Amino acid sequence: MGAIEEALRANDYYAMTFSLRFVPSEPARKLAVVACMDARMNIENILGLRAGDAHILRNAGGIVTEDVLRSLIISHHLLGTQEIMILHHTDCGMLRFTDAALRARLEAETGVAATTPAQFYAFEDLEADLRKQIATVRQHPWISASVPVRGFVYDVSTGRLKEVAAEPSGEGADS
Amino acid sequence: MGAIEEALRANDYYAMTFSLRFVPSEPARKLAVVACMDARMNIENILGLRAGDAHILRNAGGIVTEDVLRSLIISHHLLGTQEIMILHHTDCGMLRFTDAALRARLEAETGVAATTPAQFYAFEDLEADLRKQIATVRQHPWISASVPVRGFVYDVSTGRLKEVAAEPSGEGADS
Repeated sequence: MGAIEEALRANDYYAMTFSLRFVPSEPARKLAVVACMDARMNIENILGLRAGDAHILRNAGGIVTEDVLRSLIISHHLLGTQEIMILHHTDCGMLRFTDAALRARLEAETGVAATTPAQFYAFEDLEADLRKQIATVRQHPWISASVPVRGFVYDVSTGRLKEVAAEPSGEGADS
Repeated sequence: MGAIEEALRANDYYAMTFSLRFVPSEPARKLAVVACMDARMNIENILGLRAGDAHILRNAGGIVTEDVLRSLIISHHLLGTQEIMILHHTDCGMLRFTDAALRARLEAETGVAATTPAQFYAFEDLEADLRKQIATVRQHPWISASVPVRGFVYDVSTGRLKEVAAEPSGEGADS
């Protein structure tokens, strides 16, 4: 049985035992989470979230792309979220390739030089990339300065989050 | 206590009871799921997924943006996923605004006319939009034609998925 068919059987059972009627669409905890798509991360479990608590945005790497900004703006302005967490994680696939090498491989395998996506956003330094993502949210004029934006690395071998400060330690000490 | 602090306390407990060491990064079920960020959807529960089973991509609406294509290509080519599900849901916030009205409101509230994001992707017809997203994945030259791409509407009042065919019924009957 294929994975989709298996998921549909599981959904039959889920729907039979469903009891979440009348949960509002506005996240109860006013929280939006941006995280990697990694299969090992169950965001609700990692953060103790229940249905209705938070918006969860996920993509390859937990990158604050234009699409994530779009989603955060909708979340914040139309659905009332007031805090943002960004989650990267150890052993991330984005550390194991480069944009140029992946693009060359895809072009060689398919014979097509696609221009979308323009970037893959592979990175070499987990914490430096996370700081970059925090800054991208922080700098957007449509995300209120009053909204906390905090970044964390999730350790896939321990389940624990470690905060990464928006500014690298040791830098900016004179400012 | 703020929502992030509350989530960090929950993570302390999660890490204390953590038992998922040595799960590979390649999704065990070779499945990638694209879904809305809606707080009422716990994708793992809805689809019966366990940690390590599937990549989960989420944004406002479950739209196949450039970012989602980026993530799906990484998922498929670098991490071996072979089936794709796209999930929209009833009572979606994307049905309740228009791009032009939201942009006007943001510009009025902040006094800034930002050009990113270029689009918000609000939609008026849930099933028609879902078909559009299926087609966008299907047409990308870097997603193999052998990969099933199926779309579903999740009913937030029953927990049940309903499949939406890639082609609208009644149309294309002569082809």
